[in-house]
Amino acid sequence: MNFLEERIVRDGTIKAGNVLKVDSFLNHQIDIALLDTMGQEFKKRFANEEITKILTIEASGIGIACLTARYFNVPVVFAKKTQTVVQDEDKYVSDVRSYTHQCTNHVFVTKKYIKNDDKILIIDDFLAHGQAALGLIDIIEQAGAQLKGIGIAIEKGFQDGGKILREKGIHLESLAIVDSMDEKTGKLEFRKSQNQ
Amino acid sequence: MNFLEERIVRDGTIKAGNVLKVDSFLNHQIDIALLDTMGQEFKKRFANEEITKILTIEASGIGIACLTARYFNVPVVFAKKTQTVVQDEDKYVSDVRSYTHQCTNHVFVTKKYIKNDDKILIIDDFLAHGQAALGLIDIIEQAGAQLKGIGIAIEKGFQDGGKILREKGIHLESLAIVDSMDEKTGKLEFRKSQNQ
Repeated sequence: MNFLEERIVRDGTIKAGNVLKVDSFLNHQIDIALLDTMGQEFKKRFANEEITKILTIEASGIGIACLTARYFNVPVVFAKKTQTVVQDEDKYVSDVRSYTHQCTNHVFVTKKYIKNDDKILIIDDFLAHGQAALGLIDIIEQAGAQLKGIGIAIEKGFQDGGKILREKGIHLESLAIVDSMDEKTGKLEFRKSQNQ
Repeated sequence: MNFLEERIVRDGTIKAGNVLKVDSFLNHQIDIALLDTMGQEFKKRFANEEITKILTIEASGIGIACLTARYFNVPVVFAKKTQTVVQDEDKYVSDVRSYTHQCTNHVFVTKKYIKNDDKILIIDDFLAHGQAALGLIDIIEQAGAQLKGIGIAIEKGFQDGGKILREKGIHLESLAIVDSMDEKTGKLEFRKSQNQ
């Protein structure tokens, strides 16, 4: 197991409805040293990509994106969520369906913060059905910028987001891929990776 | 002028209704090197305080809090916003009135992430009427923890949040205090500080 998988086993808890709670270190309370190690690891895995900007989505992607950006020496842009559709020619808007909250959020990025010569790395905490990633990719395409890769902390390998993105030929790196988890036994299985 | 004041003059824009837009470097697109310098400066200004945790509020406080936490070597906890009141004995809940959006948000922190022996530094991007800070202070008091200080990037000195907090005897450090700004001329005045 790598550092993140070990931490998930130690401090994560499995809840009903395929919920993996990691809010003691990742998305409510944040272990900064862990995020820093994640940032280093993303830099290693995307070492061959030229990146000009990191794109994430509020709120829980921001910490990881910021700690990762230090290693790439680039700015972070975070897409903002809004319940109402913003009709505004200054913004790129996309829809993101939330399976967890059973609703659709609109996300937007102010146009001047993604240019058509930007080479973008998306960073986020979770990948499940891939809706947030697909919304961000839609925004990158609207801007005419280039997607160079997606870095995810925890991928739920038993949901289809990872498959959809890999089939598009996207360079996707998930630090931990949970292939199965059992609420009753508390047991998790991680996918074997070449990076270990 | 210090590094943040210089940046506000260069890249901030003043909009109607006392809005200071700094979303090109602080709260939509984020200049990581700038936030890192802010983190160092907060460490310097709170060097004599023993801090065990940094508390902020989603979304735009998270980046600054994370970069600052590296210098204090402590975890970050970010309060989450919710439109509906969460009736949950596992959470501390407080109300935060937003003058900008003319609504009241409820913010919460899961109880186990603030203990009564925690010594807390609040970090946020803006201080205007002080509503977010007062909500976080309320949560700290509910937890029986100790507030050791508040670090703010930009304080609107012509609104009353700073006055309210200083009169409570709180150690408040704002990296830039805007005492006046004029939408028509684009002119800003900063309060002189002993730290320059």
